[in-house]
This record gives sequence, structure tokens and C-alpha cells, in this order.
Amino acid sequence: MKDLNEYKRELSQAGQFIKQHDNYLIVSHINPDGDTISSSLTMALLLRFLGKSFTLVNEDPIPDKFNFLPLSDQILSISEIKNTFSHVITVDVADQKRMGMISPLLTDDVEILNIDHHPTNDRFGHLNVILPTAAATCEIMYDLVKELNIPLSQDLASCIYTGLLTDTGGFRYTNTSPKVMRIAAELLEYGVSPGEIAEIALETISKNHISVLQIALSHLQVIENGFIAWTYLKANELPQDVTSDDTEGIVNYTRNIEGVEVGIFFKEVKGNVFKISLRSKKYVDVGAIAKAYHGGGHARASGFTFYGDLEEVLQQLIDAIKQSEGWKYLENKSN
Amino acid sequence: MKDLNEYKRELSQAGQFIKQHDNYLIVSHINPDGDTISSSLTMALLLRFLGKSFTLVNEDPIPDKFNFLPLSDQILSISEIKNTFSHVITVDVADQKRMGMISPLLTDDVEILNIDHHPTNDRFGHLNVILPTAAATCEIMYDLVKELNIPLSQDLASCIYTGLLTDTGGFRYTNTSPKVMRIAAELLEYGVSPGEIAEIALETISKNHISVLQIALSHLQVIENGFIAWTYLKANELPQDVTSDDTEGIVNYTRNIEGVEVGIFFKEVKGNVFKISLRSKKYVDVGAIAKAYHGGGHARASGFTFYGDLEEVLQQLIDAIKQSEGWKYLENKSN
Repeated sequence: MKDLNEYKRELSQAGQFIKQHDNYLIVSHINPDGDTISSSLTMALLLRFLGKSFTLVNEDPIPDKFNFLPLSDQILSISEIKNTFSHVITVDVADQKRMGMISPLLTDDVEILNIDHHPTNDRFGHLNVILPTAAATCEIMYDLVKELNIPLSQDLASCIYTGLLTDTGGFRYTNTSPKVMRIAAELLEYGVSPGEIAEIALETISKNHISVLQIALSHLQVIENGFIAWTYLKANELPQDVTSDDTEGIVNYTRNIEGVEVGIFFKEVKGNVFKISLRSKKYVDVGAIAKAYHGGGHARASGFTFYGDLEEVLQQLIDAIKQSEGWKYLENKSN
Repeated sequence: MKDLNEYKRELSQAGQFIKQHDNYLIVSHINPDGDTISSSLTMALLLRFLGKSFTLVNEDPIPDKFNFLPLSDQILSISEIKNTFSHVITVDVADQKRMGMISPLLTDDVEILNIDHHPTNDRFGHLNVILPTAAATCEIMYDLVKELNIPLSQDLASCIYTGLLTDTGGFRYTNTSPKVMRIAAELLEYGVSPGEIAEIALETISKNHISVLQIALSHLQVIENGFIAWTYLKANELPQDVTSDDTEGIVNYTRNIEGVEVGIFFKEVKGNVFKISLRSKKYVDVGAIAKAYHGGGHARASGFTFYGDLEEVLQQLIDAIKQSEGWKYLENKSN
């Protein structure tokens, strides 16, 4: 656990840095998600309040659904920016690679303030504010707003709320801490619309996702007395421009079915190469099963890559599941 | 808005009532949901702490997914109870009909404490604690726990959290107030597992739901340049024991698709009788459209019943949507 005094010192140094300079480049990470976008817009609003100028950059385009956030239309692509910056603030960026190809925008004597919550952050900044226990970088942004005595506004509150909401999966992941909920409570006092933001940020379905979901559900089967559900997507069924975001969450449709203990999702990334996701509800250690295939994960969620025949690996998996301690316990329980 | 002093007075009277008597019947509402079950178990835990005896009753069985809640196995059906009660506490029950057929369990001189958050509550109790601004009856239960100075425990916190979570749709409905979030923050301090509870209470998919979803998604079509999505379920496609819970949320798969403004779901309840749900994202007033068919609802969510041919009413609806002000605005915007 990080020493909270150290964190407070980092916050205070970040506050000084922000007050001392001007003309900032604010960098969010490639393939931007709700937390990095919201953190970068929070920083922009904060700098605007302090009368500082800033430029927002992201190597990749911002997903349309985040258009509702204030200043989101001011996030530029790298090629749109012609000048260079000697003061850079990165948000939710765990290492330099995640900044994208922004080096042409930096002066030789650039100073970087690195604000992040990833435990893997390599402290690449000249100043670093890293709190691995924070649920979202927006949680640190909230602390920074307080550190700088900046009054909350509906705009600031909406940004911070969006970051908290998206990085906790709608207050559903284990990182949903009392602090997250207390901050959310305070933000709601400033006119944040929890329903509207959740609908836009969490419930929007991409066109590709609905396509692959249609196919995956048509393949879904519940087997072994209702304890295992599985489905697959063949490479030739996937839309050309499918991303891993589009197929995310499909495994949950197998695992979440009432009575199902293990859910399995096979995604054929190319001919006979499958990415396999395993999920369990309560008893079966799917981490151990994935490990036997040189995969990773933990007891309730794991995955691995398999080269070969789908039917063959499915049968192997069913056998492995049925030999697990958890399965035996479950079978005894339900007899 | 209810006078907060009046509410405090009601809470204090409820506290007196609870302390003065013993041997309570705790009644939750028929077709029990997360809030009524959690409120009734909160009441049971509270009475147990005070050394009082109680019997829990519900006319209907408790959905399996709520088995994780403490004392949930003690909720009895009416026929299992042989004695009568002169002190009854109802939770989340808006009127006497919602109590179910419990009159054989009551003495002639029964006194009822009625705790509820429905604005429609008809104050059928001898004592009533009604707070229509509460997001859930469990919010009132939290206030009662504080009123009685009962220390929070993990069990109490898990019950109250489950009620708040389910009645706010996972902190996504507009009733998600700062107070709800502050209570949730405090409850998390007592070892509540937000992820586990959300998974069980919100993400469990019934077998019938997965069946109807498979069919509904296979019928789903996106039309009118991606602005309208619609799907249907024919009566002969529905499982025999389908409930309205099983088909709930299907309309969201149409409306939530990126770029879609209006989502339409037709459920054929019997031959050529359709229940039609309309949802819009931002511009089209689907409440006005449903009203023209003698339906109800509001600008973003409405519904009506139609007797006739699906293709015919679909074409009528498309015409009505395209003639709406919102649609014209949207078309201008996207040209």
C-alpha cells in the first residue's frame, strides 16, 4: 500500500507544477477509454479555470459516444498540432508507448507530469502522481481539483463521474471503494445525470457488437445439466473491422445464465487459432484450467490461445472442468 | 416534497412500535424483487439484534438468485405459517393487494407498520413511514437502522446495499441520488462485495430470457439509414412459462445500438395481439406516438397494445416517426 503522505506530497508538487507553467499539452492514452478521456477533459477544465492555455491530443479518435463530454471536440489528432510543448501532462498513461507517437510535439527540454492509477506505471514523468489503489485516474483528478481548491461545476463533475463510472464498470468491479462512492455522491450534488451518462457510456452497443452478438447467441449451447454454457465465433463470421471491444462481454452471456457454473467463449482469430475465454461463477477454478494451456487469469476469469480443432479443445475443456475439485463439489451439492 | 420533519416523526414512531412489541410478521410484496426482499431481511436482522422474534412471509417464492442474502431461507410461504400475528410490518408494499392473501395470518386487532417508498402508497397501515423521494425502501430501512442505533454489520449492509442497487438499476436510474451514493459508500465500509452482488442481482440471465433474446436478436433489423432498429417475438416462439421479466430489456438492444434514434420491440402476446415498446435516444417523442394508439409513457419510453398485422403497424410507426419534429431535426442535423 502506498504511503498516503507520499501521495499527498505528489499531489501538492503536481499542483505547484500546474500553477507555475502555462501552455500545456494534455495527453491521453491510445485507444482512449472513458477514464483517460474524462481525466484529460477534467485537466483541461481545471487549467481553463486557472487561466492557463492547453492543447488536448490523442493519437486515436475519441469514440462518438463520449461526444457529450465538455471540450471533447477539442481533442486533436497528432497531425493537427503544429507547435511544440515544453510542459506535458499525461493522464491514465502507464508507459511512454501508451502516449502514442507524440515525440514530434515535445521540445528537447520537455517536462512531463504523469498522473495515473495503473500499478504498472513506470514513472516516466519528471513528476509523477501515481495511486495504484485509485479505481480510476479520475479519482486522482478529483483529489487534484481539491488540492488546487477549484470549485466543482457540473462540467467538472460530469467528467470525473464518467471516469469513475467507466473504470468501475458502472460501480460493479471490485475496485468500487467507499471513496469512489463518496466522490460520486458529491458529484451528483452538482447536477450530474447518472442515468444519462450510464446509458451513453455503458449501454451503447456498437454495430459490430450487435452483429457478433447475434451470431454468438445463435451458436450458444447449454450442456452438462445446465452447468456449462458455451459459444463461438468463426473467423469468417467476424466483420472485417471488428475490434476486441466488439467481442468483449460475449463470454458473460454464457456464464451469467441461471444455473450455469462455467461459461466458455471461443473466438477464432484466424483459421484454427482460437482465443478462448473461460468464466466461472463460484466453484470451478478456471484459472488452473487456462494455466494448463499456458494461459493466464484467475479462478473466476481466465483465457488462453489454442491452435487446433474447436470440437477437440471443447471436449478437453469439458473433461478438465469435470475433473476439477469445484465441479465435484457442485455435483455433490446438487444431488 | 414531503416535510422531512414529518418523515423523522414517522421514523421515530416506527422505532417506538418496534421496541414496544414482539412476535412480528414481516411481509414483503408479491412477485418479490430485490428491494422488498432486502428490506424484509433488514427488518429481520434488526429485530434479531433487538432480541425480538419474527416470521418472514411472502406469497410467492423468492427468486433463487437472492439466496445469498442472510436469512433468505427463512422467508416462508403463507401455507407454511400456522399461527396468527397482531403486529405486522410491511416493507415496499404500496397497497393491501400487494401483501397477497395474508389475512388468515392476522388477528382481528392487528396493528400494521407500513414502510414504503412508492408515491402511490395508500397509507393502509396503523403507522406509516412513507418517503416517496427514497430511491428504495431499503433507503428508509437504513434510516430506521440509524434511528434505532443499531450498529451496521456486513449482513445488514449487504441487504441494504442489494435493495439500493436493484431499485436504482445498478445506480443507473434517475433516482440515484447523492444520499443513495453516500449510504452505499458507508455500507461498503462493512465488507459488502459490490461486484459479487451486482453480478448475482443484476447480471443473472434467466433461461427463458436467453431463449427469447436469441430469437429476438435473430429478427433484429436496423433500417432508415441506421436511425431505427426493430425486432419482434411471435407468440409461438415464446417459452410456455415466459414471464414479462423474461422479455424485459429486449427493447434496449434495439435502442442502444450506436446511431439508432428509435428502437421498437413487438411482443405478440396472442395471435395478432402485440404489446409494442418504443424507446428513443434523444430527439423523437415516442410518448406522443404511443398516445395516438391510446398507449402511455413519456418522450423516451412508451408502449401500447395493437390488434392486427405486424407489418402494417410497423409501417404506420415508421411513418409516424418520420413525421415527428424530432426526426426532422435529426435528419437536418445529419445531412
